[in-house]
Amino acid sequence: MAEFDLTIRGGTIATAADVTRCDIGIRDGRIVALAEALPPGMRDIDATGRLVLPGGVDGHCHFAQPAGDGSRMADDFLTGTRSAAFGGNTTVIPFAAQAKGQSLRDAVAAYHAEADGRAHIDYAFHLIIADPTPDVLERELPELIAEGYTSFKIYMTYEGMKLNDRQILDVFTAARAHGAMVMVHAENSDCIAWLTERLEAEGKTAPFFHGVSRPQVVEREATHRVISLAELADLPILIVHVSGREATEQIRWAQGKGLRLYAETCPQYLFLSADDLAAPGFEGAKCVCSPPPRDKANQQYIWDGLANGAFQVFSSDHAPFRYEDPQGKKLGGESAPFRTVPNGVPGVETRLPLLFSGGVGEGRIELTRFVELTSTNPARMYGLYPRKGTIAVGSDADLAIWDTEREVTITNDLLHHDVDYTPYEGQVVRGWPITVISRGTVVCDDGALHVAPGQGQFLPCDRPDPAR
Amino acid sequence: MAEFDLTIRGGTIATAADVTRCDIGIRDGRIVALAEALPPGMRDIDATGRLVLPGGVDGHCHFAQPAGDGSRMADDFLTGTRSAAFGGNTTVIPFAAQAKGQSLRDAVAAYHAEADGRAHIDYAFHLIIADPTPDVLERELPELIAEGYTSFKIYMTYEGMKLNDRQILDVFTAARAHGAMVMVHAENSDCIAWLTERLEAEGKTAPFFHGVSRPQVVEREATHRVISLAELADLPILIVHVSGREATEQIRWAQGKGLRLYAETCPQYLFLSADDLAAPGFEGAKCVCSPPPRDKANQQYIWDGLANGAFQVFSSDHAPFRYEDPQGKKLGGESAPFRTVPNGVPGVETRLPLLFSGGVGEGRIELTRFVELTSTNPARMYGLYPRKGTIAVGSDADLAIWDTEREVTITNDLLHHDVDYTPYEGQVVRGWPITVISRGTVVCDDGALHVAPGQGQFLPCDRPDPAR
Amino acid sequence: MAEFDLTIRGGTIATAADVTRCDIGIRDGRIVALAEALPPGMRDIDATGRLVLPGGVDGHCHFAQPAGDGSRMADDFLTGTRSAAFGGNTTVIPFAAQAKGQSLRDAVAAYHAEADGRAHIDYAFHLIIADPTPDVLERELPELIAEGYTSFKIYMTYEGMKLNDRQILDVFTAARAHGAMVMVHAENSDCIAWLTERLEAEGKTAPFFHGVSRPQVVEREATHRVISLAELADLPILIVHVSGREATEQIRWAQGKGLRLYAETCPQYLFLSADDLAAPGFEGAKCVCSPPPRDKANQQYIWDGLANGAFQVFSSDHAPFRYEDPQGKKLGGESAPFRTVPNGVPGVETRLPLLFSGGVGEGRIELTRFVELTSTNPARMYGLYPRKGTIAVGSDADLAIWDTEREVTITNDLLHHDVDYTPYEGQVVRGWPITVISRGTVVCDDGALHVAPGQGQFLPCDRPDPAR
Amino acid sequence: MAEFDLTIRGGTIATAADVTRCDIGIRDGRIVALAEALPPGMRDIDATGRLVLPGGVDGHCHFAQPAGDGSRMADDFLTGTRSAAFGGNTTVIPFAAQAKGQSLRDAVAAYHAEADGRAHIDYAFHLIIADPTPDVLERELPELIAEGYTSFKIYMTYEGMKLNDRQILDVFTAARAHGAMVMVHAENSDCIAWLTERLEAEGKTAPFFHGVSRPQVVEREATHRVISLAELADLPILIVHVSGREATEQIRWAQGKGLRLYAETCPQYLFLSADDLAAPGFEGAKCVCSPPPRDKANQQYIWDGLANGAFQVFSSDHAPFRYEDPQGKKLGGESAPFRTVPNGVPGVETRLPLLFSGGVGEGRIELTRFVELTSTNPARMYGLYPRKGTIAVGSDADLAIWDTEREVTITNDLLHHDVDYTPYEGQVVRGWPITVISRGTVVCDDGALHVAPGQGQFLPCDRPDPAR
Ligand SMILES: [Zn+2]
Ligand SMILES: [Zn+2]
Ligand SMILES: [Zn+2]
Ligand SMILES: [Zn+2]
Ligand SMILES: [Zn+2]
Ligand SMILES: [Zn+2]
Ligand SMILES: [Zn+2]
Ligand SMILES: [Zn+2]
Repeated sequence: MAEFDLTIRGGTIATAADVTRCDIGIRDGRIVALAEALPPGMRDIDATGRLVLPGGVDGHCHFAQPAGDGSRMADDFLTGTRSAAFGGNTTVIPFAAQAKGQSLRDAVAAYHAEADGRAHIDYAFHLIIADPTPDVLERELPELIAEGYTSFKIYMTYEGMKLNDRQILDVFTAARAHGAMVMVHAENSDCIAWLTERLEAEGKTAPFFHGVSRPQVVEREATHRVISLAELADLPILIVHVSGREATEQIRWAQGKGLRLYAETCPQYLFLSADDLAAPGFEGAKCVCSPPPRDKANQQYIWDGLANGAFQVFSSDHAPFRYEDPQGKKLGGESAPFRTVPNGVPGVETRLPLLFSGGVGEGRIELTRFVELTSTNPARMYGLYPRKGTIAVGSDADLAIWDTEREVTITNDLLHHDVDYTPYEGQVVRGWPITVISRGTVVCDDGALHVAPGQGQFLPCDRPDPAR
Repeated sequence: MAEFDLTIRGGTIATAADVTRCDIGIRDGRIVALAEALPPGMRDIDATGRLVLPGGVDGHCHFAQPAGDGSRMADDFLTGTRSAAFGGNTTVIPFAAQAKGQSLRDAVAAYHAEADGRAHIDYAFHLIIADPTPDVLERELPELIAEGYTSFKIYMTYEGMKLNDRQILDVFTAARAHGAMVMVHAENSDCIAWLTERLEAEGKTAPFFHGVSRPQVVEREATHRVISLAELADLPILIVHVSGREATEQIRWAQGKGLRLYAETCPQYLFLSADDLAAPGFEGAKCVCSPPPRDKANQQYIWDGLANGAFQVFSSDHAPFRYEDPQGKKLGGESAPFRTVPNGVPGVETRLPLLFSGGVGEGRIELTRFVELTSTNPARMYGLYPRKGTIAVGSDADLAIWDTEREVTITNDLLHHDVDYTPYEGQVVRGWPITVISRGTVVCDDGALHVAPGQGQFLPCDRPDPAR
Repeated sequence: MAEFDLTIRGGTIATAADVTRCDIGIRDGRIVALAEALPPGMRDIDATGRLVLPGGVDGHCHFAQPAGDGSRMADDFLTGTRSAAFGGNTTVIPFAAQAKGQSLRDAVAAYHAEADGRAHIDYAFHLIIADPTPDVLERELPELIAEGYTSFKIYMTYEGMKLNDRQILDVFTAARAHGAMVMVHAENSDCIAWLTERLEAEGKTAPFFHGVSRPQVVEREATHRVISLAELADLPILIVHVSGREATEQIRWAQGKGLRLYAETCPQYLFLSADDLAAPGFEGAKCVCSPPPRDKANQQYIWDGLANGAFQVFSSDHAPFRYEDPQGKKLGGESAPFRTVPNGVPGVETRLPLLFSGGVGEGRIELTRFVELTSTNPARMYGLYPRKGTIAVGSDADLAIWDTEREVTITNDLLHHDVDYTPYEGQVVRGWPITVISRGTVVCDDGALHVAPGQGQFLPCDRPDPAR
Repeated sequence: MAEFDLTIRGGTIATAADVTRCDIGIRDGRIVALAEALPPGMRDIDATGRLVLPGGVDGHCHFAQPAGDGSRMADDFLTGTRSAAFGGNTTVIPFAAQAKGQSLRDAVAAYHAEADGRAHIDYAFHLIIADPTPDVLERELPELIAEGYTSFKIYMTYEGMKLNDRQILDVFTAARAHGAMVMVHAENSDCIAWLTERLEAEGKTAPFFHGVSRPQVVEREATHRVISLAELADLPILIVHVSGREATEQIRWAQGKGLRLYAETCPQYLFLSADDLAAPGFEGAKCVCSPPPRDKANQQYIWDGLANGAFQVFSSDHAPFRYEDPQGKKLGGESAPFRTVPNGVPGVETRLPLLFSGGVGEGRIELTRFVELTSTNPARMYGLYPRKGTIAVGSDADLAIWDTEREVTITNDLLHHDVDYTPYEGQVVRGWPITVISRGTVVCDDGALHVAPGQGQFLPCDRPDPAR
């Protein structure tokens, strides 16, 4: 009987540190051997000429997350994890969002009900804490952290979600006490409201003005503020979806002071710009997300931050709304004011190919850095490492085999989400994940799905690395 | 009949630009001539060997301002303006503070009632806006600005006073529309509350911990935030009582970006330090003010900012509470927690001698810069220039004649406020104002008061220079 | 007999601090009285509706300065001071340049010979130290400083002029010991040579490439370096002709650290840009100067630095070469490589109108700041204050009466230099100096010259203010 | 016959990315398998409970490097590589130094003669370019780069070594053209000379004043300058031995601008301080190195830079001189002026234990970061990766087995260099390399040396990663 259930033979494997020509031996869903040459397994995959990467860990995506405004996300766990898998991912970490007045545990339970038996790849949950009552902070949160919900996102904007500074400090205090990681959406709510009202009063309501209502100063202010709160509370935090130069400068400044500050950016800040929000008619709504894409000069600052260390994590912030849908981008109608347009762009399937092509392919970042940003670091940040996020003996056999030469023109037809558009329509990339393996099982291969819903399992998370 | 009511002969006069040997001719309360030699006036003052400066304009002091916590300020307009005059000042700008729910006009009326017939030198009012209702912003404020109340202070901390970001933006909008100057007390309220509770839970309630409850990061955060709000609203503002390096760095950063940002500092950040808050027993309460004095290394940053331009205004922030007084520093008793100690230090009389001695005398700033920081710039910032703030033909004859060689050991006995201590007790200065003249009338001379209450008049303010 | 030789009646006078409606009484060439109303003098000038400013002090201009490359400056003291006077100036400070091997005293003597009996307005000399031998530093320089040559310029580039770091430190040491002010031309010589060779190898020799050969990094590096040398030697210095954002950021950074660093900028960095160097044919040569004009975005950084304090001095750096002249811009022929084009633009006559119109007129700087930057501060920096640089009792009666409403289209015809072009041809300004008075004598008035060469006298300088 | 020549069983292995429990299979000197459990090899080493790391790559050390001043380094390849091995290293990269007038090839040949048959572990050479003649730059250097000498150090100080800015640009041009990595010793030579002369004139010649003669501004200036030169020449460079806050700030600033700037620091900037230079008598000479150790506050900035990315490489800069030796620290006698003291501290054996204990042990850096800084990154930077610098299939079996619990008091007795002191005498560390394996051969084990000189081989280097 073969020593291995599966061998991947002949490929070049990459981790956050190393690029190596070697075979991979898999047994019971885990990697048990890496060697120049391994004996045949029960099944062999020939990866000669291919790149074998750790499956992507998308540390920031939204599936089936209710908003309370009548909108509905186009992807649930079924379609969301399917799309993620086709995009080279083996783990996703969406959000179990607390509503005001709701118990955290109820939110988690509801989210488990959504996910149970429907996921194609493994998943963990970030919590969203929208109502940090004493009971939540002192009882529920410690219990949930102990049970494997060790990271949560808080918002500095959005009605129904936003916390004030005192609440943020209280959440930080609990996170520090119990070893959790806090992710922060940093935009100043009051500024956005003030600007929005003024724009509306001037009749400036087209999708383009969504970006005008959230200029960089609004993000920079909130970034500086939450850095200060974390400095005071003395804990590491992570700023999500950093969009441009001004917030990045605050992040570098804080890192230069020796603060343990982490930051994430997303494809929309590299591959979209304010020009896309200015598309004719209502088309700009397709790119409405927050923070909004900035001008093209800012894209370079984001690339620099990915290359030289301001950012540790690259996520999709997949937030899927259909364009032609009264519960989607057109929630408010055909030419609704930007205020009513659901925020978010789909991207869980395009995240990796876009960064691989624009980053590794164009020589902006190294392959090891690509793996670190898209897989190893999110796993570390959110307590999934070393189970996820690397190719190492003992880790889950979560792998993506890439054809680095395949040139693909991105079109929505090609994608497996349940959204009716992609903001990257027509962009050409070189390099695409061909085969994705989760715990030793081929999830998809050459465009075909090979597993049933339920293949993906829930992952309780350990203490995040920065919180150790 | 003499051409002049009064001549000042033989002195060296200084303005924000020039130091000149010349005589001053005064008629009808105004300066009408500056010349090498003037004919005798009705009255002559020999200023040979003396320095003749524009009377100080103290752009930030509190008299008889109610707090609502049972505390009572030791100085009202009678004693406050008396003390100011003996300290070389001819104008003060205290605050007419709105209480929540109160109309601004009522606050102004109440404050006029306090001041009428009681002041020894001229005065204007800043407003304090604590409740920016639509009626306040849209009706009262424009009317009051038109009537000469063209500057106001807002608070980012203190219950009952603090505004949230949206309120600040609304106040900024009104200020911009009507050409007023906004002064900002920048400390993050939530942070202070959070720290205070933690300190109290640990039993750390001595006056020293007042400083610990308001570390620099708390001031820096609010400074960055309000700079951002002003950047968004596109108006000049002034940050009051900047205390140390961290806030100063934010101010320089904003000025370097080309924002029209002004800043004030005060004697307590040059001549007091956290060591004074650590005085034995309850003595530290004498130096409890907000922001608190920082460590000694920070004093140098403040000096640098005065010398090379980060700060435009040097004020006393005179906030007088008696030490041995159940309505003063001991409001909460003999060893009350710092939270109950009324905030503020007296300083309207010592502001000028301290800066003159430590600044001009020690070679840290030039004499012209001294005049600019203490008289000309506050007059400009608050719409009193050129009536006040300089020695020029046409300006009010508001003058202070200084003996630059007089060495004085500051003791509370020497001072004319109604407070029972000075935080500068025992400090030795060189240079003291001997004779103070308001609109051509000698207010005090060689320690004696020569005018009756009511000599000082209310000054409606013009549009502040930066708001033109 | 009248008390005054001359009175200026009815005007509005401005100093670095004040704007006042008053008459000026002049006797023996000095201002002896400022008053609301003065009795008639021997002569009266009606300045009603006019602005009366201190005559401009151009702290950086080149007249008749030999270069050793066959080029010849178009202006000597006769034409240079004439042009300066018509531009509202009453003092110029050109350079007595030492050649390698030459004694400083010989350089000064030669320069006096040039100036004697030929100047229309008063003048002082900066020295240029190109050969800091021990004899120069230990004997000549102290003697000359004592005689009134209290400032000097050093170069970090230009063959025959440039000093290495050790020489700079030695010059700084001497300046510090004897209380002189050092002005620094900060560009990295080696970088320029390296870039120039590469450009020439690629055939890129048109005037436009002059700018490419001296990018901002070249100026920024030298600026940082000389700031460091001055920090080490512990003396104030002044960086001349700062051109753009990168050097300005270094200057702000140093000022923020508390270093006594001063800086100058010039009209060519506000009103010219790299586009002008790209003019068709050889026309760009007219704007060849060093550092070169930058792109338009950089102009805003320079305006910000003038408005909020990075710069203290605004000079012309008048360096006059004729365009159609084999000893001028066409020294190397009709289409010579940029390397052979003499560096410099004329501007002594246009400096004040350009800044007045673009600065005060456009609301970018205040009138008092205009006076400070163009007259008071240069006088202070170079030891001429309070004799020059202000309107104050006791100061020289050096005045410029401006018609603030006069709209002038700048053309070379209008100007009184001996150059055959102005780089500002066609620019429209509002506000022009109508009458210029030097020590009580009308030098020019309404376009006519009223004095003979020799009216202007040499001014020995006192210790500069920053070096006190 | 066994599949493996050697297996390392039961250990925990760490790379720059991963920490994994697994066995290592070695054949022909290379790692051929990593697996949960491997069959026995010809030889087995039990590493249960131990940490197995990639052997250290010391990217900056000096052996047998002649200085021309009569001094002699205490370590040659025999003792230097022995000491390195006992300190957990398997690769060293010392310097083949060109003398002025010498051909580079001769320098390399002489250095090979020193090394041949004497090294205990593998070695590569950096070149030192002291005389960049056209022949060197255009012929020798390209040839040597092609032969595997792909990195070189240049000096901005030290007579006989230092290059001027033009020479640096020329070296940079050649490095860019041929894909080499330039390391820069950044201190301003003229400043040091100027300060040294002044100190000597004041009789301040004790070892302590070595530090005073090279203050941070001297390092900061050179750092800014060479960053600017590299920005102009558009190539990545590496600043070696960064000592404190000021240079680090320049490095972060450049990285924030997106420049490809790398930096190294060394144990002496973490574990020594200016206090050590102030040791009684002549003892301070033991810590004389350049740049000098700074004050203790600066150590924190260096730790921060190691933790969050300003530095990529941690080297020893081992520069071994005996203390009691007329060719060593006492070259100038028993109490010689600091100028005559040979610069350098020994440290090739203590580098790793100090950083492991103070960094990983104290929680300042992660274990993966330790491996990255001390092994992987130097291998990458200098073209030895993936042969050296990691534990991966295909890489050389260069391993160090650490006892992480062993507590060691560092004394010179313990060390294997040929120096008569260690500056870290008496410092206590936790964690020590027990067994070191080079290409599958045990070099030393439990304090005993197991190989003969000549075991170490020369490593021609590939193109450095940043220069690809
Ligand atoms: Zn978000
Ligand atoms: Zn999101
Ligand atoms: Zn306040
Ligand atoms: Zn106050
Ligand atoms: Zn110059
Ligand atoms: Zn010049
Ligand atoms: Zn070195
Ligand atoms: Zn070295």
